[in-house]
Amino acid sequence: MRTINYWHTADIRFPTSKELDGSDAMNPDPDYSAAYISFGHQASTPAVGHASVFTIGRGNDVQVAALEAVKPFVMGRDLDELLGDMGLLYKELTGDSQLRWLGPEKGVMHMAIGGVVNALWDIKARQEKKPLWELLASYSPDDLCNLIDFRYLSSALTPEEARDIFMQSEAGRPERAAALHAEGYPAYTTSPGWLGYDDEKLARLCREAQEEGFSRIKLKVGGKLEDDVRRMGIARATCGEGYPIAIDANQRWEIGEAIAWIRALTPFGIDWVEEPTSPDDVAGHQQIARAVAPVRVSTGEHMANRVVARQLLEARAVGLLQIDSARVAGVNENIAILTLAAKFGIPVFPHAGGVGLCEAVQHLAFFDYVALSGKKEDRAIEYVQHLHDHFVDPVVVKNGRYWPSNVPGNSQEIVESTRRDFAFPGGVIWGS
Amino acid sequence: MRTINYWHTADIRFPTSKELDGSDAMNPDPDYSAAYISFGHQASTPAVGHASVFTIGRGNDVQVAALEAVKPFVMGRDLDELLGDMGLLYKELTGDSQLRWLGPEKGVMHMAIGGVVNALWDIKARQEKKPLWELLASYSPDDLCNLIDFRYLSSALTPEEARDIFMQSEAGRPERAAALHAEGYPAYTTSPGWLGYDDEKLARLCREAQEEGFSRIKLKVGGKLEDDVRRMGIARATCGEGYPIAIDANQRWEIGEAIAWIRALTPFGIDWVEEPTSPDDVAGHQQIARAVAPVRVSTGEHMANRVVARQLLEARAVGLLQIDSARVAGVNENIAILTLAAKFGIPVFPHAGGVGLCEAVQHLAFFDYVALSGKKEDRAIEYVQHLHDHFVDPVVVKNGRYWPSNVPGNSQEIVESTRRDFAFPGGVIWGS
Repeated sequence: MRTINYWHTADIRFPTSKELDGSDAMNPDPDYSAAYISFGHQASTPAVGHASVFTIGRGNDVQVAALEAVKPFVMGRDLDELLGDMGLLYKELTGDSQLRWLGPEKGVMHMAIGGVVNALWDIKARQEKKPLWELLASYSPDDLCNLIDFRYLSSALTPEEARDIFMQSEAGRPERAAALHAEGYPAYTTSPGWLGYDDEKLARLCREAQEEGFSRIKLKVGGKLEDDVRRMGIARATCGEGYPIAIDANQRWEIGEAIAWIRALTPFGIDWVEEPTSPDDVAGHQQIARAVAPVRVSTGEHMANRVVARQLLEARAVGLLQIDSARVAGVNENIAILTLAAKFGIPVFPHAGGVGLCEAVQHLAFFDYVALSGKKEDRAIEYVQHLHDHFVDPVVVKNGRYWPSNVPGNSQEIVESTRRDFAFPGGVIWGS
Repeated sequence: MRTINYWHTADIRFPTSKELDGSDAMNPDPDYSAAYISFGHQASTPAVGHASVFTIGRGNDVQVAALEAVKPFVMGRDLDELLGDMGLLYKELTGDSQLRWLGPEKGVMHMAIGGVVNALWDIKARQEKKPLWELLASYSPDDLCNLIDFRYLSSALTPEEARDIFMQSEAGRPERAAALHAEGYPAYTTSPGWLGYDDEKLARLCREAQEEGFSRIKLKVGGKLEDDVRRMGIARATCGEGYPIAIDANQRWEIGEAIAWIRALTPFGIDWVEEPTSPDDVAGHQQIARAVAPVRVSTGEHMANRVVARQLLEARAVGLLQIDSARVAGVNENIAILTLAAKFGIPVFPHAGGVGLCEAVQHLAFFDYVALSGKKEDRAIEYVQHLHDHFVDPVVVKNGRYWPSNVPGNSQEIVESTRRDFAFPGGVIWGS
């Protein structure tokens, strides 16, 4: 028996607010941060996994405290028992009544559970000597079903329906895995579109995004309408007719305001509009989606859990869906959300950027393509080109595409020197 | 200028799991706990307020860490500036982009903001030498509007509509305040109905509840249907026809399961069914409500914020609504929720019990009666008879009614000896 005898959390922050990278209508001065968790069996042959919960600065310490609250559920446990049933720890933690009170299944405590679940997946993938996506794509339909907590999903997705969905894409797995290696997976970039950038920089970055081969770009909107009209005009003129440009309001609008704003930008051609209003407002997204069709409405980056995802899909409130690797209870809950999206025929465009989100979420998108939806048309993973060199296995994005690595694990391990230098508040970067 | 120069948080826990008080289908072994916050101006004439966030044990330390994350927003501020605009701090904290990332507006961080907002109200009420409910009931309609964050509410409630609602009940305030002192406010009790109690104890406590004058009782359900049928039969036989008995499933069911279970219990007469399924599932509550009408469906104890409340009301998914003093962002957000409920003509039955929830939420119900809905028919505050002697100004419940105290403040201050003895893990109660 290998006992879990190692547990370490860290508060790691990057001073991104100095450059206005990541500035949007709701988040003017983020310091991208990682509430970082490592745990496992420390021995001559160690089995340790890593993951992080992404925050934007203040409160990263609260997120670390929430990770620490999970420690008693993990330390001293039989690692091999947990690795033998990868639905077990996830369901135990989300089902624990006392932790559940702090959500339920939402916010800081839920994200901490997600971090721990993701780190366990990292151990599993390293042990199996596979990148996480490949490990997941090797699971049988029955084993995939066992990863999902079907509670509160029965109106939309039963275990039998999920199994059918997994079985439909079981046959073509080897071919799609080969295609993934040969063709990569589409990426889109938000790098040109941060609100803090001036018009000249916007146009230059739009040109560069196209030259680099990105299939689409996304602009942040929601500050002032006249600015958005001007910036959308610049982006469209630079990119040309027909090139997909999405917009992202980061929850800025009321329902009626969203409809008017989107209509004002619709003449420029909008691929989708992301987070028009509160991520809790299923009814609001439904109203907006009906009013601005055929422009597609989307959300997901702040979607609390699979219950909200189910409602958004049932209500046809979204034309596509984001997922986030660190918002919900980890790989397991994201598989539930991907399965729901497949059931409703809604494409998923994973949210990334931040720090480590690209590294983490690519595995879910690759898995979805190979073993779940079976599709990568009209799909793309968000990409922002910064902070990747802090990772042991950074994403490979070339020619506007993500390329799968063959490194075992979930790609979330942060290099040792970064963990030391960017530690908050003690690291050298923070002037201590 | 009085500077905020005092800030103290505490982790206080009560070993309630030993007695199975508070046991329900979702929460088998709660240790009722308070993440306690005190802050203000410490001087020869101190101005300090208190509040707590209720949790059920594990994770209370995470809740305390979240309170601590608010400290930089409060310490060193001009207390009188904050007291002069009681919407200011609330909107600052819920609007802070970095704290917001940790929700947004849900879970541990949101509850911490609620605790801090509630403690500020305690300072305000003490300074004005009024119990909180009386202070709130002295606000003009315009000033009440200024307390509310109308963001994401515009489809249901504009500032103008809110002002109209407040103005409609402005005239009768003195008469209703007098009636409150003369008649009290209806209470109902959950004391008989915990799942951990045997049948004999259930029957005895049902009799006692009636004898004590409670207007209704509530039974926990959702363990085994056959047990619920038997217990409902005992309660009905003991209480007699026509006496209101509500049931509470604490989120136990799937949608279809809820409908079947409620129908099986409907012949016994159900006043309302509380938390049939996930508190995030507006669509599910709507389906259940339509299927089991005229039995009323309810939720709110775990309702994340006013955006979810708005959707529940717009969808007619609830026939009544709970509010909780410590789940949302404090007094301000609860005033928004009470105003929404008044707009839709839906009665509010505040959730209480726990530790300090009765003390806190009575102020909101009294305020609602005197200066908002103007009604106390078909309304009642939950009451559980334990842990009240730990409070400086405990609730007064006699003859099945809450009676307003005249003590200035919000009634949430915990007595000094309890704060010492029940401190976790250092207090004598915890064996240290």
